[in-house]
Amino acid sequence: MSSSSSSQTVTAGDYLLQRLAQLGVRSLYGVPGDYSLGFLSLLQSSSSPASTDESSAAAAPQIRWVGNANELNAAYCADGYSRAKKTLSAVVTTFGVGELSALNGIAGAMSERVPVVHIVGVPASSAEGNHSILHHTLGDGQFDTFEAMSARISVAHTRLRANGSMDIPAEIDRVLHQTVVQARPGYIALPTEVVHAKVSAQRLSTPIDTSQPDNDERAEAAALEEIVKRVKEAQDPIIIVDACAIRHFVLDEVRELVEKSGLAFLHTPMGKTALSEQHPQYAGVYVGSISEPEVKERVESADLLILVGSIMSDFNSGAFTYRTPQTRRIELHSGHTLISYARYDGVGMKTLLPKLSAALADDHDRRLAHTQKTLPAFANKLPSREEEGEFGGPQGDLISQAYLWPRVGLSFLRSGDYVVVETGTSSFGSVEARFPEDTTYVTQVLWGSIGWSVPCTLGVALAARELNKKHRVILFVGDGSLQLTVQEISTMIREGVCPYIFVLSNDGYEIERQIHGPDARYNNVAPWNHKAILSAFSGYDEPKTTFGADKEDAKKSHADDVPSSKTQYYGVRTKAELDALFADEEFNTPDRLRLIELFMPRGDAPRALKRQAEASAKLNAYEDD
Amino acid sequence: MSSSSSSQTVTAGDYLLQRLAQLGVRSLYGVPGDYSLGFLSLLQSSSSPASTDESSAAAAPQIRWVGNANELNAAYCADGYSRAKKTLSAVVTTFGVGELSALNGIAGAMSERVPVVHIVGVPASSAEGNHSILHHTLGDGQFDTFEAMSARISVAHTRLRANGSMDIPAEIDRVLHQTVVQARPGYIALPTEVVHAKVSAQRLSTPIDTSQPDNDERAEAAALEEIVKRVKEAQDPIIIVDACAIRHFVLDEVRELVEKSGLAFLHTPMGKTALSEQHPQYAGVYVGSISEPEVKERVESADLLILVGSIMSDFNSGAFTYRTPQTRRIELHSGHTLISYARYDGVGMKTLLPKLSAALADDHDRRLAHTQKTLPAFANKLPSREEEGEFGGPQGDLISQAYLWPRVGLSFLRSGDYVVVETGTSSFGSVEARFPEDTTYVTQVLWGSIGWSVPCTLGVALAARELNKKHRVILFVGDGSLQLTVQEISTMIREGVCPYIFVLSNDGYEIERQIHGPDARYNNVAPWNHKAILSAFSGYDEPKTTFGADKEDAKKSHADDVPSSKTQYYGVRTKAELDALFADEEFNTPDRLRLIELFMPRGDAPRALKRQAEASAKLNAYEDD
Repeated sequence: MSSSSSSQTVTAGDYLLQRLAQLGVRSLYGVPGDYSLGFLSLLQSSSSPASTDESSAAAAPQIRWVGNANELNAAYCADGYSRAKKTLSAVVTTFGVGELSALNGIAGAMSERVPVVHIVGVPASSAEGNHSILHHTLGDGQFDTFEAMSARISVAHTRLRANGSMDIPAEIDRVLHQTVVQARPGYIALPTEVVHAKVSAQRLSTPIDTSQPDNDERAEAAALEEIVKRVKEAQDPIIIVDACAIRHFVLDEVRELVEKSGLAFLHTPMGKTALSEQHPQYAGVYVGSISEPEVKERVESADLLILVGSIMSDFNSGAFTYRTPQTRRIELHSGHTLISYARYDGVGMKTLLPKLSAALADDHDRRLAHTQKTLPAFANKLPSREEEGEFGGPQGDLISQAYLWPRVGLSFLRSGDYVVVETGTSSFGSVEARFPEDTTYVTQVLWGSIGWSVPCTLGVALAARELNKKHRVILFVGDGSLQLTVQEISTMIREGVCPYIFVLSNDGYEIERQIHGPDARYNNVAPWNHKAILSAFSGYDEPKTTFGADKEDAKKSHADDVPSSKTQYYGVRTKAELDALFADEEFNTPDRLRLIELFMPRGDAPRALKRQAEASAKLNAYEDD
Repeated sequence: MSSSSSSQTVTAGDYLLQRLAQLGVRSLYGVPGDYSLGFLSLLQSSSSPASTDESSAAAAPQIRWVGNANELNAAYCADGYSRAKKTLSAVVTTFGVGELSALNGIAGAMSERVPVVHIVGVPASSAEGNHSILHHTLGDGQFDTFEAMSARISVAHTRLRANGSMDIPAEIDRVLHQTVVQARPGYIALPTEVVHAKVSAQRLSTPIDTSQPDNDERAEAAALEEIVKRVKEAQDPIIIVDACAIRHFVLDEVRELVEKSGLAFLHTPMGKTALSEQHPQYAGVYVGSISEPEVKERVESADLLILVGSIMSDFNSGAFTYRTPQTRRIELHSGHTLISYARYDGVGMKTLLPKLSAALADDHDRRLAHTQKTLPAFANKLPSREEEGEFGGPQGDLISQAYLWPRVGLSFLRSGDYVVVETGTSSFGSVEARFPEDTTYVTQVLWGSIGWSVPCTLGVALAARELNKKHRVILFVGDGSLQLTVQEISTMIREGVCPYIFVLSNDGYEIERQIHGPDARYNNVAPWNHKAILSAFSGYDEPKTTFGADKEDAKKSHADDVPSSKTQYYGVRTKAELDALFADEEFNTPDRLRLIELFMPRGDAPRALKRQAEASAKLNAYEDD
């Protein structure tokens, strides 16, 4: 990236990179393609020294290219980076082939509200005018098809034009602003010749304003008055913290509400770890009728729900089984507030929450006493032999789902951990574990794309490294899900990150078996040797090529390589082996990439998944009547 | 699938399966998801015995489920199956997450004209009416977003409805008819409850008419007269056979034209192996200005080009460098004919070609003599040490691109082989090799999606097995491209197919390096141990799980497993090693899956790629001026 001051010009490509850097992006994800090579070259042709000073528009900090194994993985990785770093992330792909491969990952960010900007290198505008039949097109001379597809899964999109018809910096800012403020994907098509078009650098001296719009004062006052009235009238209000509290950065405000009000709070699956699960007012994870019985009873006995950042999706709500009627719910959202059936537009939670906390502080002690008296046990409790049933095995030594999750909560998780869980037995099981303080739980409950968690873990690990945190990054994924995106483990190794990858090995897609087809061929997967996976992705076992690798081009291309990760495989078959591993301090030190294969009984599932599966089967009528 | 006669009803799911079977589908590709499980269950709940009799609508032949490692791979696999089997193929995915992952593969079929029907299991229509926030949605209560995206890359799409508003059999037939006749993707959204909806079986007794529409007789007569006149007036006409001659099944007609007219013919890269490359009138592969010099001269000296099924894309035409003006071209297409600038709509090549052949037969001997006299040498010629240059290595023993391709043509390829090549050094290099008779060359020149070739090879191998051919399936892929879709090797092993996988190992994306950035980090890939890849995907190295695998459910699910492939790895570093391997009869017997890693110099590329890269760099203006 070249330097610039506000009176100068800068290339459009550099402008975009500097804006990304200002918004917190330090790693770019993707796969190179011939229409994006020019843009990628800017990353290493920087004429100014690397800098991490974000206050100056004149010197953009260095952004690192992280090449992924494929584009879908890149999008998933960016998603994870964004979630862990709490900033924008960016994926760079090439026209047609590359961008379409990424769409499922981008749609996931749309669904789950993650700000990912998708930058697509597209053919020069001259080709568009000529309707040339270029490679990576449908052969119809059209160049807007793919942008139209992405428009359906993004909040802002553009194709940049350097023909004088467009204020390129303003257009870039528009898309990035919407992406960040709405916490959803944006799309920028970057024609090859636009990369080097000169644009004014003036806007760079003013950061993009990413604050939420101010609330409508009078509407806010009316909503606040009504909420306070209802809370004070209620005998037993309770707070449920959900995903959008995380996405829209109101966690400090929610914690203040909890602590000033003295009310008990819960997480949903998508809101898990929004606040500390060790907090004395924490009452567990609420998932409607599939919640732990004590948790379910506690919520259903409340006469008012304060829902913060709620996403009422099937898997996040126990298949829509909240029992509390809408008349006894208050919903705080990023841009509006809902009290019973009354909607207050323009009243967002960011500024409303502190006012609500202040208004509820006067009765703190009474409420806290009630909270303490009625707090359900939500503990990591190992099952009895009886509770575990057949899946503990004839000798009771096998690792059942009922055993695994409390054991992980009790003996493995530590403060600082990032925990990524795949949709499946991992996501349903892990919500049942109580997490230590200051942990970050990353899951994709709404979109639920199989395979997402593996590249997501790479993004989380890179974000954690950039944040310079003492951290461990831990993934739980099934043997079926792993297969979709497994090659991203090689990027982890190349980038030198050291996550724990727990593979729940049970011969297939167990979540699907629970829903339909326990005896079906289609729920099996190809058998893999997971130990050899690490060997395969750990580089050459002998000198690879004898010609060309010692030349200047080759050496330069590898100059910024980081030391790759060491790896270690563990095959774990019994409770005793698992417990011993968790007790081993060497194992607990994240100094290598570890793949821990947990051999688990086929047919076993966490209790919550079994209940969810019954509900899904009913909705979907799998059987012929 | 349950049996039915024309007076009976059948479920919509069975109707669809029986239509697929009638159109030649014997394998279904995809990944299961909860919205598609009901449909997939039909595959194994058949109440009628398996049958391969396609003449009876009452007994649909058995269709085999082939679960892929991910959905993009499934779409690529279906593409390969369709190309090799010359029939429809089908991919089954689940709503949102699954279908979007497949889009790049479907778009490739759109671009390259391959009939793939994408069947998507979607939520029950009741959920649509309720605007429920289901998993795998964007959380907006909308259910038509993904169909709208797929509509951009398919020739027909539908969402089936069982509420009485739709004639489901007619609607299924409409989509399948368009898919096959236009040789491009179709899209069918199948709500869970529609799978079991009863529909009339009546239409099943009449196969879907997949013939091309009849030509307009008078327009055809006029076009024929004009073509014959021009051919007879020309001194030196020549025929160029391109992709759509393959896709629209006119190869017998084209061969007849060649043989009755006595004219010389060429292939384009996309048309390669349309006719036999051992034919005495075969003049080589024409790629505009990047053709072999003798071939280029031969075409450019012709005064009339007869282009059959032409796709004039950049990579198929040497960056649009045909020198013959449009006034001296005749283009025969599936639905129209172009003579100079005059377009004859409704005149397709299928029925025009035989008439043209008949009209040109009278002067066969004179033309054949001219063809023989002017035929360029298009031979598999090994390079001299001088021609090979530095990439032969200091000792001249390394495997250069200049050496590899003629060596493959001379010593390895055999009649019956299917050869799949990845876009990159493989596609550009392989066009320079002359192939034996009765070989099938499979490439993706127009769409050019990196990673396509690996799953495509699986589809080709399964098609070849169904066709019961004595065959070998051979893949050439780079070490960079392999990484995107590598896990499909595990499906090959599970399905027991035995392709040859040649991995051109040169430390990265060589085609990108040739275009831009020979010293760029972004053109490197993570180093892999390709030997361990085979171990990783070859199943468990020890008994895997001790509980659950012996139960009835588990045993039933594995009852139809086929014996998995043996595998073997070869690391090949020198010309001598390569030559010895090709000479080894054991190696030439396709009795196991072989991965042959060819260690090749970094920076080397086939001659045609070097020229194409120069043209691409010029179009795309990578450098700042």
